[in-house]
Amino acid sequence: MLVVMKAHATPEEVRAVCQKIESIGYRAHTIPGAERTAIGVTGNKGEIEPGTLDEMAGVQEVIKVTKPYKLVSRDCKQENTVITFPGTDATFGGKGLAVIAGPCSIESREQAFIIAERVHAAGAQFFRGGAYKPRTSPYSFQGMEEEGLRIMAEIRDKFGLKIVTEAIDHESLALVEEYADVIQIGARNMQNFSLLKRAGRSRKPVLLKRGMAATLEEFLMAAEYVMSEGNYNVALCERGVRTFADHTRNTLDLSIVPAVQRLSHLPILVDPSHGTGKRNKVTPLSRAAVAVGADGLIIEVHHDPDKALSDGMQSLYPEQFEELMTQVRQIAPVVGRTVPAIGIHAPAASIAAKPVGNQLGRAL
Amino acid sequence: MLVVMKAHATPEEVRAVCQKIESIGYRAHTIPGAERTAIGVTGNKGEIEPGTLDEMAGVQEVIKVTKPYKLVSRDCKQENTVITFPGTDATFGGKGLAVIAGPCSIESREQAFIIAERVHAAGAQFFRGGAYKPRTSPYSFQGMEEEGLRIMAEIRDKFGLKIVTEAIDHESLALVEEYADVIQIGARNMQNFSLLKRAGRSRKPVLLKRGMAATLEEFLMAAEYVMSEGNYNVALCERGVRTFADHTRNTLDLSIVPAVQRLSHLPILVDPSHGTGKRNKVTPLSRAAVAVGADGLIIEVHHDPDKALSDGMQSLYPEQFEELMTQVRQIAPVVGRTVPAIGIHAPAASIAAKPVGNQLGRAL
Amino acid sequence: MLVVMKAHATPEEVRAVCQKIESIGYRAHTIPGAERTAIGVTGNKGEIEPGTLDEMAGVQEVIKVTKPYKLVSRDCKQENTVITFPGTDATFGGKGLAVIAGPCSIESREQAFIIAERVHAAGAQFFRGGAYKPRTSPYSFQGMEEEGLRIMAEIRDKFGLKIVTEAIDHESLALVEEYADVIQIGARNMQNFSLLKRAGRSRKPVLLKRGMAATLEEFLMAAEYVMSEGNYNVALCERGVRTFADHTRNTLDLSIVPAVQRLSHLPILVDPSHGTGKRNKVTPLSRAAVAVGADGLIIEVHHDPDKALSDGMQSLYPEQFEELMTQVRQIAPVVGRTVPAIGIHAPAASIAAKPVGNQLGRAL
Amino acid sequence: MLVVMKAHATPEEVRAVCQKIESIGYRAHTIPGAERTAIGVTGNKGEIEPGTLDEMAGVQEVIKVTKPYKLVSRDCKQENTVITFPGTDATFGGKGLAVIAGPCSIESREQAFIIAERVHAAGAQFFRGGAYKPRTSPYSFQGMEEEGLRIMAEIRDKFGLKIVTEAIDHESLALVEEYADVIQIGARNMQNFSLLKRAGRSRKPVLLKRGMAATLEEFLMAAEYVMSEGNYNVALCERGVRTFADHTRNTLDLSIVPAVQRLSHLPILVDPSHGTGKRNKVTPLSRAAVAVGADGLIIEVHHDPDKALSDGMQSLYPEQFEELMTQVRQIAPVVGRTVPAIGIHAPAASIAAKPVGNQLGRAL
Repeated sequence: MLVVMKAHATPEEVRAVCQKIESIGYRAHTIPGAERTAIGVTGNKGEIEPGTLDEMAGVQEVIKVTKPYKLVSRDCKQENTVITFPGTDATFGGKGLAVIAGPCSIESREQAFIIAERVHAAGAQFFRGGAYKPRTSPYSFQGMEEEGLRIMAEIRDKFGLKIVTEAIDHESLALVEEYADVIQIGARNMQNFSLLKRAGRSRKPVLLKRGMAATLEEFLMAAEYVMSEGNYNVALCERGVRTFADHTRNTLDLSIVPAVQRLSHLPILVDPSHGTGKRNKVTPLSRAAVAVGADGLIIEVHHDPDKALSDGMQSLYPEQFEELMTQVRQIAPVVGRTVPAIGIHAPAASIAAKPVGNQLGRAL
Repeated sequence: MLVVMKAHATPEEVRAVCQKIESIGYRAHTIPGAERTAIGVTGNKGEIEPGTLDEMAGVQEVIKVTKPYKLVSRDCKQENTVITFPGTDATFGGKGLAVIAGPCSIESREQAFIIAERVHAAGAQFFRGGAYKPRTSPYSFQGMEEEGLRIMAEIRDKFGLKIVTEAIDHESLALVEEYADVIQIGARNMQNFSLLKRAGRSRKPVLLKRGMAATLEEFLMAAEYVMSEGNYNVALCERGVRTFADHTRNTLDLSIVPAVQRLSHLPILVDPSHGTGKRNKVTPLSRAAVAVGADGLIIEVHHDPDKALSDGMQSLYPEQFEELMTQVRQIAPVVGRTVPAIGIHAPAASIAAKPVGNQLGRAL
Repeated sequence: MLVVMKAHATPEEVRAVCQKIESIGYRAHTIPGAERTAIGVTGNKGEIEPGTLDEMAGVQEVIKVTKPYKLVSRDCKQENTVITFPGTDATFGGKGLAVIAGPCSIESREQAFIIAERVHAAGAQFFRGGAYKPRTSPYSFQGMEEEGLRIMAEIRDKFGLKIVTEAIDHESLALVEEYADVIQIGARNMQNFSLLKRAGRSRKPVLLKRGMAATLEEFLMAAEYVMSEGNYNVALCERGVRTFADHTRNTLDLSIVPAVQRLSHLPILVDPSHGTGKRNKVTPLSRAAVAVGADGLIIEVHHDPDKALSDGMQSLYPEQFEELMTQVRQIAPVVGRTVPAIGIHAPAASIAAKPVGNQLGRAL
Repeated sequence: MLVVMKAHATPEEVRAVCQKIESIGYRAHTIPGAERTAIGVTGNKGEIEPGTLDEMAGVQEVIKVTKPYKLVSRDCKQENTVITFPGTDATFGGKGLAVIAGPCSIESREQAFIIAERVHAAGAQFFRGGAYKPRTSPYSFQGMEEEGLRIMAEIRDKFGLKIVTEAIDHESLALVEEYADVIQIGARNMQNFSLLKRAGRSRKPVLLKRGMAATLEEFLMAAEYVMSEGNYNVALCERGVRTFADHTRNTLDLSIVPAVQRLSHLPILVDPSHGTGKRNKVTPLSRAAVAVGADGLIIEVHHDPDKALSDGMQSLYPEQFEELMTQVRQIAPVVGRTVPAIGIHAPAASIAAKPVGNQLGRAL
């Protein structure tokens, strides 16, 4: 913590602040500047509650310095976390780009299978589909619940797709960890700390979406909650934030990808479907997400979006998803990534090109 | 829903959109304008998923019109909801201003009693204190849990203060509804729909805080979730939103008070402590909240904020709270409100002045 | 400036950063902490361009500390700036609340006189009216220009109202300073530095509106531009900022009032008309602005808003403005302010009440 | 415009609103819905000022429908605007990607030439450099003014680079149009309508940057100002917007690229230097900007950023810019774009690959 004094602060005021700091149990380091004095505070483990320093005579401002994150930080672990999925070569955070695709909601066995077949054929390694839907309105379709999870488990059996689906409370999390391969925590629950702790006690990897107004620090601290309970397989996901801009449903903040990669060893994926909320923006922003260096994409696909029970507006048609995969396959090598070949989930290295240079991909 | 066609849309394109609308089961109403045609869509109950209309040839834009809220709306209930508390004349939404005060967290029996005595003496009718704390860091103090609830129950017994405290999951909600008088749902859980439904099955009133990036519609829909389960005693609370502004922790959006009052019959309170995050801003913004017409205030007070385990920076000293109550007592009558006399929770009408006119208070 | 090192930064990395700092001509102060080292940088006058420190090995973050503002700061001048207007007792920043009212645009001599008569009778001391209108569309009414200024000069002669009107470029500023009493710089021009410098060379007071996305620091620096050219009569004006919230046109940020008062000696007014953009929100937010401690209000009033050429939606009817003044007269004394009596611009102290205490008004 | 009535609006209230609409000179179209009635308003040319409709009995909401832009719109001109530069094959909006590079400010003849040589060699076709700098502080370096323009004119003569530089007022615009090839209007002046009109009377192309809080509609309307004065050579530029996010200086909103391309025929470029404010984010976001389909990049480059007089933190080293160009050359073909070969500004088609499909690039 740093206490910045006013230009005209008297030596007595500086002394009083130093005494206050030491009375709380920290050490004060006076740094006299040309115009004003600053006082560094050390000796704290973790955050200091600045208490009343802010209001003492002569104090201009109190600036927090110590970062609260530990386990998520590259200070704690230098090398990238790579989450692997037994029986496949798919990863979150490895050389291969993770591609997750599927409908917003599981609406029926037939709908889920039609879509799964198409996205599998186009090269997705993961199938997404909501069984528990956090909807703005209580009168909207809330998901098929366990029946939806069962359908997705069948899809895994048939197509070899790994299943990613959202848990919204302790009860649904217990079922999701039973049926699925990845537990998704949605944006609206990013600071549902009770749910984060529960996910931290699970053995399944967690895909944690950024909250709509979450700073980078809050996003990382949400991951810290999961890790602090012992589950180190956490992947982050940017899905757009709230801004004044009204041409998209949310503003997709791609700059968080290199920002996360600089501070943390955790993988970071991007969801351009929620990130834009408009079908015609999903493909361009997916290309951009790969180009910026994201570890994967999560894309909503529906074969009949007019009849979708949720998010029809932002779902790609299967043929649009295929086209997107074609484009992604061309961009990925530029950032040193591989993309699985069509419909084959065995070693996908064949398409990989030599990365352009050492500044790419996850370089710090 | 309204579909706005492009200026050069052909009659065939307009026809195709109308046919599409009717094929989904709605009625289309063509409105030819000077420059372009618009098509009104009716026949829907609740929201329409605009599906692919947005992408059809000749379509410029699709605008949602139907509002999804029902039970929260003045369309549903004209007169204000007034939540009463047996054994007192305190209300949420009545003529008297609701004043809730207390520490961020219950830290010990002694701390809680010292503060309760002071805020009671100054005129608060409700005591707040966190027993379950949603903290950004898993390493920060997480609350005294049931022990904290027990201390607050003693405070009710001793001072007659009604207890307001936050529940963060199903488990804590079961305890909160047992010990407390009002179940608070925090900003981070405003769209934790599972928790909202659970609160909707409780018999205790719910104080629902606005999420940090919640629009007015989302805020009302969160209340709709609670009401849709049968609990009609919901009060809303503005507590600041996320913006680019960095001189306060959040930006307190006081304009939502008249906006809620226009659309909804539910009470709306204001929390200037979280809304500003800085002690020296709490008193001016509290005055402003009363002047704008809020139904109540929720204020953090701590007798020794340097040692507070959470939110020390934004807690008022008891003497600052007393001063604030003095000021509030002078402003409240201007908006037709009464404020309880010092330390007396019996009929408080004595201080009430004649309201200025019929445009004040909760007038629409 | 403060350089925060990573937890694992080596002594060599710390040394290299210190050498870099000293090679640029500053002094480095190492502050060893429990987890990491921070390095204070002193010896700079004004801002340092952090250059490449941010990218050096072992560096976590670079934090700016020195504030760039000088003349606007309380460090430079402790006591409040009070702008006086010869021949009246009206001020910006004095004990009396400044009340500015009038139409968005001057549309005709008749329209301006009708409104001026009403706002004067209700107690306004200043008349506002746009002669040069910054409109979003080039096809919208752009103002009556010099003819509008002439009408306002007549209004001053007839009613004794001081004239506040906007200049949008060098040419219009030259005319505005000739005809008007206060030069308004609009939100869209808050960082039109060429215009700010020109205003700084004027002898007339400047009313500077906050830009729609301006931080407190940028707002103060815009005032610094005016003052740095020699014009010290600057008043600030909050008029709402851009956020995700969609229930008002802008989000009125009342917390900036105490924030400005803490850092700067300049007066700060509030414009609830632009700040909300909706007539039914203007009165509640005006009450709140007075209660928060603002030095004045600027309110749009129109006798026939249906036919207004601009901003009809947010203009009060004259009778609503009279009602607002009645309410303001009751709230102002609580914050130690006086409000002019109806239609009399001579000493207005008669309505003043004793302020509540020493924490009110412009107290720091 | 659409007027949405409340659910319980009476037939009399609906009739009164219709009469009001017709009394102002428009036509009213009643659309009865299942729950409520909406009233379409037609007959207006351009925008209607909604006046008091919003406040009439029974009215829930008034929604604007008509878009105010004309000349910028694809309704007005279907095919893309391509701005050409005589003597080169460089364009804004053509098949070739426009690459603009150079220092934030021209600091000396030597500095400018060193950088120009490097960016020219790496393949830039345009040289940027500020001669008139809009700086937040009046005490910061304000640019070399006409001397800086002269240096850039020399650079054009020597390297064949076209010159892009900012004008900040009428006076500097007159000089910029004399010396430079493209007149840049900065973000802070996006709604300086007086300057926009002046740029509209110039014969030189205009590069218009998005304001920090500008909606898509406001951005397009700023371009409309320029075009309405007769200058149709306008290119837009996204440069980041203000949000709560604090890990970058601004939040780069790449989704505006496809959004502009859908509504307007004007080219849209991206500035990742200001868009992120951090050197280590410029390269990833530049890749993303090309992948999303932007018509060009504008990049700050400095050979000695530690000593830069402005924006050192966000300037690439020349070797980083070369590396960026290598990456851009690989991504551009995926979106059907060509990138000039190194140091050659003659036909650059050699690197172009076949575009992936018909959904790419500027497809609607």
